[in-house]
Amino acid sequence: MLASILCRDEMTKFGSYHYQAQAQEADFQGNITLAAAGGYLLLAAGSHADENGFGIVQLQSMNRTWVLSRAAIEMKRFPRQYEHFRIDTWIEDLSRLQTNRVLNMHDADDNIIVSAAFNWVMIDFVQRRTVDLKTLQGLGEYVTGKGPLIEKASKLPFPEGDSARSLCVCYSDIDINMHVNSMRYVQWLQDLFPLDLYRQKALRRFEVNYMQESQYGDEVALFRQETAPGDYLAGARKSNGDIACKARFVFE
Amino acid sequence: MLASILCRDEMTKFGSYHYQAQAQEADFQGNITLAAAGGYLLLAAGSHADENGFGIVQLQSMNRTWVLSRAAIEMKRFPRQYEHFRIDTWIEDLSRLQTNRVLNMHDADDNIIVSAAFNWVMIDFVQRRTVDLKTLQGLGEYVTGKGPLIEKASKLPFPEGDSARSLCVCYSDIDINMHVNSMRYVQWLQDLFPLDLYRQKALRRFEVNYMQESQYGDEVALFRQETAPGDYLAGARKSNGDIACKARFVFE
Repeated sequence: MLASILCRDEMTKFGSYHYQAQAQEADFQGNITLAAAGGYLLLAAGSHADENGFGIVQLQSMNRTWVLSRAAIEMKRFPRQYEHFRIDTWIEDLSRLQTNRVLNMHDADDNIIVSAAFNWVMIDFVQRRTVDLKTLQGLGEYVTGKGPLIEKASKLPFPEGDSARSLCVCYSDIDINMHVNSMRYVQWLQDLFPLDLYRQKALRRFEVNYMQESQYGDEVALFRQETAPGDYLAGARKSNGDIACKARFVFE
Repeated sequence: MLASILCRDEMTKFGSYHYQAQAQEADFQGNITLAAAGGYLLLAAGSHADENGFGIVQLQSMNRTWVLSRAAIEMKRFPRQYEHFRIDTWIEDLSRLQTNRVLNMHDADDNIIVSAAFNWVMIDFVQRRTVDLKTLQGLGEYVTGKGPLIEKASKLPFPEGDSARSLCVCYSDIDINMHVNSMRYVQWLQDLFPLDLYRQKALRRFEVNYMQESQYGDEVALFRQETAPGDYLAGARKSNGDIACKARFVFE
């Protein structure tokens, strides 16, 4: 990978990607869902990595892949269906264990409507361990030192109380890596909140910690706990007791 | 509507739309799901209607909307993630009650990989009744008489036997019309089939009849019955006994 990164003719530290929100991504109020917005953020991150030689496709031949470990997203609003928007993204920094990526979603008037800070780790899926990112010197060239506009995701507690809902991982939940896609968890957890909450309040901040992957046929129990007015912990736990992910939703 | 259709400068009887399949739409084999492919077919149909003055946005001001009543889709294969493809679409014919639309998905080499025949009815959502399409003379200009490459959807029976799964309609299931989106049913029904079936066989034909809408909080039971090897009826029924939709999946 080192070679393929360093020998690129053109290096784009700052990526910029244009999209149009689709009707089928919109919720009952005509705004795209958090899961759909998160999907676009992942898409922009993936495009920036691909174009610069360190994307998932390039890593695959080395038995490596990127895994999203934590994410924080704050939103003034989400794009409306059919709305055109742009995502700017870059790498803030790099440690042995992880890299921090900044993503800002701009509307057509260049207002930032969504800001995100994503933490990624690189996994060697044959050796089943994380890769020391400092050994990949080519990647260091992409570090900008420019941090996110929002606070990064913290280490979250798992919600207390009984399971709100449980489900079995089905065909459409599984991606090409044979596990549940990160944004499917977001959809599941979003679905724990009643429609009235979405009517009365606006989601302002979302954080997630991804812990363990879920696979086809797994039984997953979903949890939700209100810790302060509008401030919720949520989480997904597999029937073997392993936590799949922990999240926080702040509505205002 | 008549006026707005007739006064258009340019009329495109045959619409042609380009898309790129996204990674998050792909299943475990890297092909986009039936629900995602169906989403693109709906998108192309919607774009063609919008551009010619008879789209959902234009109809809304007249308290009218299009409702998909039946669909048949046959597939050689579905687009791979990141694959570019094109959908050609046109209106075949028009009766008082419904209009038939043809949709063909072409790969980059111009091979038809997916063919579809959709039946639409127009609803007046204030009077809560169907609109006589023959009274909309502008629409008749778009009739091509050119039929689909595949057999249209037939009137399907509801599957026999016990419910395979049931669920409660959640936030993410509901679209801007406050009901379950047509492709969400497709996803639910697709999820009734085990991963091994998708590994061993290929879906070749899908038919659906949409009957009654489901709303937020509705309990929906899902059914599946194999009527011949690889040939399945499927369906969704609400707890009040109303059938939401009936479908057929043919795997080979």
